[in-house]
Amino acid sequence: MMDYTDLSKKLSMSTDSKIVMIVMDGLGGCEREPGGKTELEAARTPHLDALAAGGVTGLSDPIAPGFTPGSGPAHLSLFGYDPVKYEIGRGALAAAGIGFERQAGDVAARGNFCTLDADGLVTDRRAGRIPTEKCAELTPLIDGMEFDGVKVFVRPVKDYRFVIVFRGQGLGGNCADSDPQQTGRPPLEVTGADPASQKTAAVANAFIAEARRRLAGLEPANGVLTRGYDVFPDMPHMQEIYKLNPACIAVYPDYKGVSRLIGMKVYEQGQDTIAQEFDILEQAFADHDFFFVHIKKTDSYGEDGNFDGKAHVIEELDAQIPRLLALKPDVIVVTGDHSTPALLKSHSWHPLPLLIHSNFCRRDAVAEFSERACAAGGLGRIPHVSIMPLAMANALKMRKFGA
Amino acid sequence: MMDYTDLSKKLSMSTDSKIVMIVMDGLGGCEREPGGKTELEAARTPHLDALAAGGVTGLSDPIAPGFTPGSGPAHLSLFGYDPVKYEIGRGALAAAGIGFERQAGDVAARGNFCTLDADGLVTDRRAGRIPTEKCAELTPLIDGMEFDGVKVFVRPVKDYRFVIVFRGQGLGGNCADSDPQQTGRPPLEVTGADPASQKTAAVANAFIAEARRRLAGLEPANGVLTRGYDVFPDMPHMQEIYKLNPACIAVYPDYKGVSRLIGMKVYEQGQDTIAQEFDILEQAFADHDFFFVHIKKTDSYGEDGNFDGKAHVIEELDAQIPRLLALKPDVIVVTGDHSTPALLKSHSWHPLPLLIHSNFCRRDAVAEFSERACAAGGLGRIPHVSIMPLAMANALKMRKFGA
Repeated sequence: MMDYTDLSKKLSMSTDSKIVMIVMDGLGGCEREPGGKTELEAARTPHLDALAAGGVTGLSDPIAPGFTPGSGPAHLSLFGYDPVKYEIGRGALAAAGIGFERQAGDVAARGNFCTLDADGLVTDRRAGRIPTEKCAELTPLIDGMEFDGVKVFVRPVKDYRFVIVFRGQGLGGNCADSDPQQTGRPPLEVTGADPASQKTAAVANAFIAEARRRLAGLEPANGVLTRGYDVFPDMPHMQEIYKLNPACIAVYPDYKGVSRLIGMKVYEQGQDTIAQEFDILEQAFADHDFFFVHIKKTDSYGEDGNFDGKAHVIEELDAQIPRLLALKPDVIVVTGDHSTPALLKSHSWHPLPLLIHSNFCRRDAVAEFSERACAAGGLGRIPHVSIMPLAMANALKMRKFGA
Repeated sequence: MMDYTDLSKKLSMSTDSKIVMIVMDGLGGCEREPGGKTELEAARTPHLDALAAGGVTGLSDPIAPGFTPGSGPAHLSLFGYDPVKYEIGRGALAAAGIGFERQAGDVAARGNFCTLDADGLVTDRRAGRIPTEKCAELTPLIDGMEFDGVKVFVRPVKDYRFVIVFRGQGLGGNCADSDPQQTGRPPLEVTGADPASQKTAAVANAFIAEARRRLAGLEPANGVLTRGYDVFPDMPHMQEIYKLNPACIAVYPDYKGVSRLIGMKVYEQGQDTIAQEFDILEQAFADHDFFFVHIKKTDSYGEDGNFDGKAHVIEELDAQIPRLLALKPDVIVVTGDHSTPALLKSHSWHPLPLLIHSNFCRRDAVAEFSERACAAGGLGRIPHVSIMPLAMANALKMRKFGA
């Protein structure tokens, strides 16, 4: 959990070498039953195993042993940012994810369309899971309000979800959710923990009341719930820290959001399958020197408790590795942002298997990419924030420190 | 050596799951001769080996590689407290150990009864090792003095040892010992390193002089030596950090002292043998969700250079493990506070073997609880302060950090 960004900024240099970092979301697993295999061990991964054999391996902690991260902190630490110092709220992440152009001091929150009954009680927190097109029709109805000199922007995200951005002077982001998390209850009043956040809360409550008036009769989407308020953080960019020209290839908005916040060019189109993500990688390969390739479904299956589904996604990624090798990147990093064992159906604290492949990695004896094999690897157990310095070093993009 | 208490405080939650942490004092050892076994390797430990096989293992550093801790810091770090930030003086530890009710600003020190000759030179630093009962007869003679508005409390501990607590305004704890550490010399004047500590030192010197007058003729206990001055530290409690209801089962006062300082309920009676400590564990099991079980004699034998004695105590503990398993705790942690190799006859810097056993620990391939086997474990090498976050995580008592 140390912050190496200042040191990296001082020592990094631009060269022609290229780094590809493949992040399988929620990669780390647990054995299905005592004595059994983890998802990664169960998957047939000849190409990843060959990369491990030709590279150096280890285990990596998103934050520190025992701490389970959300997706935001887990990714920030992969890119070398101390995840406790650079905390990003879910609202800011969502707004960045859809490419909303922020200004300094903006406060963002996530919104849901919901269904309210005649008494104002929530009967469906997701408004019948209305589709994205319906969401995009409804958000203009509640966009563009202004209260007390604070502008309120509303933009659709996916399904019943939207983002709200509050723009004005002296706004704080320390506000409580209005989402009661249960049906049969009224939405909660938004409250602020300090004067600046109380100002935001007052505007948020006015917005919520006016949205309800404008949505009246439009069942199932006749109300809004809000959560995850936060000021947009001001993050140093990867260009500045690492002198890289970085690219993000990801399917889900949140990962694009984190990437945008730290300066990556985000590729937007034609990336629904892992193979399509590798199409983009091939097409964009000449234009960047750092690629973050994000594989989402390992996590989704882990959250569902679908052990075999998760193992299958790992195999699907493995099958694309020859295409990666054909591009001859100088450094290949393969790991996950956090563990999501099917056993737990949730993010967990377990460290991630990590492999770094380069001509200069000092190979170890590990010839299998798995949690247990990597525990014996030459990298030992390191924090995520050490991965970028190692990738940069293996790409010969780091000067020595001191004389 | 990082301080994870703030992060733990933010993420911890109370649940029904139970954690038992078994600490064998001075557990870590060295091989008796090159090519030989360590104390733990020499001991027959079928139950600990089975726990290792069903759990995850690693090596743990009390402070950081190369640093040898005292008992206070070694235990504090086991409970997740940065041992450098939360330094506890030996006097405060001893006073807490006997359950002395501190007040904010109190300064504590350890005292010995000693023997002085006619010239005031120390002839025996331990007054012929008078028994505890004699000590308890003598301390009232020198208790209850007051100098300059500072009250001086004296309480017996064990054998020739007592504690002194100074209570008054503006006292400092940065005072030098009066114990000259050798016979044939006079006791040293107590000095203070800053004005507040000089005030304490003046009172301490007045106390020592008056104690000598009152003890005159009571050979062998006709004088006092003092050491380990310190203000009582104000420690956050485990209740606050981890939302636990913690219990301490230990035989020696110092370990009870550390436990009391951080909020544990200390069980006081009927715990002379390891089996009796497990009796208490069984009796109290329903009433707490965290148990610290301290085994002292591994350290005592290590300090004596008694390799076989130490190995035997480990076997004695091993024989009690079935009783622990019968209680079905959710998480079992077994480790030591620091190493005390019989080879060195003292505390040492060597990392400790560590095992964590739970349903969610991600088992490794290690099937033996020993220093060398654990070096290949799935936990890698971690600092002691990571053990509590890991134990909490395995007990599913920690929320995730960030969105």
